[in-house]
Amino acid sequence: MSSVSKLPKLLVDIHTHLYLPRYASLLRTRTTAPRILSRTTISGQSEERLLILDNEPSGGRPVGPQYWDRDEKLKFMDKHGIDISIVSTANPWLDFLPYPEALSLAKDLNTDLESYCVTSPALASSPSLHRLYALGLLPLVPNAPSDALASFVRDLAANHPNIRGIIMVGENVWGEQDNGHVLPLALGFPFETTAAVTRLILAGTLDRHPDLRILLAHAAGALPALSSRLASCIVHDPRVAARLQHDARYYLGRLYYDAVAYGSAELEFVSATVGRAHRFDSSSPEVTGKTAGNAEDKERGSARIMFGTDHPFFPAY
Amino acid sequence: MSSVSKLPKLLVDIHTHLYLPRYASLLRTRTTAPRILSRTTISGQSEERLLILDNEPSGGRPVGPQYWDRDEKLKFMDKHGIDISIVSTANPWLDFLPYPEALSLAKDLNTDLESYCVTSPALASSPSLHRLYALGLLPLVPNAPSDALASFVRDLAANHPNIRGIIMVGENVWGEQDNGHVLPLALGFPFETTAAVTRLILAGTLDRHPDLRILLAHAAGALPALSSRLASCIVHDPRVAARLQHDARYYLGRLYYDAVAYGSAELEFVSATVGRAHRFDSSSPEVTGKTAGNAEDKERGSARIMFGTDHPFFPAY
Ligand SMILES: [Zn+2]
Ligand SMILES: [Zn+2]
Repeated sequence: MSSVSKLPKLLVDIHTHLYLPRYASLLRTRTTAPRILSRTTISGQSEERLLILDNEPSGGRPVGPQYWDRDEKLKFMDKHGIDISIVSTANPWLDFLPYPEALSLAKDLNTDLESYCVTSPALASSPSLHRLYALGLLPLVPNAPSDALASFVRDLAANHPNIRGIIMVGENVWGEQDNGHVLPLALGFPFETTAAVTRLILAGTLDRHPDLRILLAHAAGALPALSSRLASCIVHDPRVAARLQHDARYYLGRLYYDAVAYGSAELEFVSATVGRAHRFDSSSPEVTGKTAGNAEDKERGSARIMFGTDHPFFPAY
Repeated sequence: MSSVSKLPKLLVDIHTHLYLPRYASLLRTRTTAPRILSRTTISGQSEERLLILDNEPSGGRPVGPQYWDRDEKLKFMDKHGIDISIVSTANPWLDFLPYPEALSLAKDLNTDLESYCVTSPALASSPSLHRLYALGLLPLVPNAPSDALASFVRDLAANHPNIRGIIMVGENVWGEQDNGHVLPLALGFPFETTAAVTRLILAGTLDRHPDLRILLAHAAGALPALSSRLASCIVHDPRVAARLQHDARYYLGRLYYDAVAYGSAELEFVSATVGRAHRFDSSSPEVTGKTAGNAEDKERGSARIMFGTDHPFFPAY
């Protein structure tokens, strides 16, 4: 503990990604998604795109050195004053491989990761530290034997000192008990409400029908929590963005909510996200794009939240 | 507007349910789920249970007069000082019927609903109002022709003055545009994270492994927003509740989060739900079960939230 407390304050980026060169090379050899393909742009330049699913209308996501070149990562860190990054691999991980190939590739990629980190520059202010550490990969695909995974983790911990954790994707490791109705009730219903109203927003329905009054069950589920993320995803998808008159967060102020949210922190947060909506009105001269939600916002938001009991159901349907 | 402002302050329950007698009768005639079946309890009494899915391990949800008897609804309202309830039908609605049957049943149920409301007692403080109003049903099932739905709504509005809205369940009405990557990115990833960590909590893993350190991407998606709902669903499922040492909200204080949540209101809320976790520690003499999350809680919660950029992805993967 004492050595920890003596560390200078460091800005550490815990969520930052790379596609290792070995991984990018594999994706380039593939003829079905996921794959990286090359194409020639209108201006005659060659560019690479990562296709996660076949037939993506967008033609995939452009990828370049910022995804695999360590110098690009360090440049990004320097630009933003980030001392240390804990890098991890990204979607689609090893999901598309059968277990034997996933196992062999995971081993190689973890060796690459270790080398990526251990040969990275020392941190000027604490030269015993590197500037790059990593989260390792497991061959977590269907049919992976759990005892093999356990020994994989032990080996990783023993032989890769700069890999400081592992990333866990894939459902099969997160508990397979019978949970009765808990998951569909606690998560399923709110997820469905969130997806439904998000589709409605994305369709431009609230722009075309400003007088439409919609009351959302269970305080709109996860919509308030994900509305800023939604806004960012829309901004980065020009076809969808072009369809909408406002930032996604604006539409939360056009909807009504019931108060079946189970707690006062939850309701206060819904009020804040509903009451801040006017800050995202693109037709107003005062668009501020502020996400905070002050006391006045919460008051305004509360006015759109209605009392509800969900009688006779407990818990709520 | 002036007539509205003259109304006394009323407590209106906007989210409250019933299964109409006609609907319950139909469910009793069915031999596959959804259905209502009778069984004899150990004490020799007969009870009815609603089975939403075949082979539910719980044997279904016990149902009784509180689900269909209007006097029971009024008793509940009186007990809690609720002046007016806007009742709506509940899961599984008409989802299990082919369109022609859904259409015919929806008409009959809306007639029942209108009668349920119009013959309900007048409100003592405003005798021109009834104590019960309703949200109507649409035959919103796959293959429902959209022009038929539109005329159904017009008819409902014209002939059912006490039906003051409609409930909209079913995905097909919420927009079918191609939204590119927006839905999987904005909602899919956070939903998966939420479901995965919820499974882990429900499996008792955090009880058995108190030293396990888990960092959740995207500030745990919808987990903070749904944690109080999750806690309620667990309390009402004795098999799952018996498996866990603490209220679900306690475990949020055992996890770590990145700050990739896109807004300051969002992060403040995550801090509040993480920092209030100790109030749900069943081994502490001071379990308060308070859900608010004060300034001190937010400070405590922030200590478990870590900086992250998601470089080079924008929006975040
Ligand atoms: Zn309900
Ligand atoms: Zn990411």
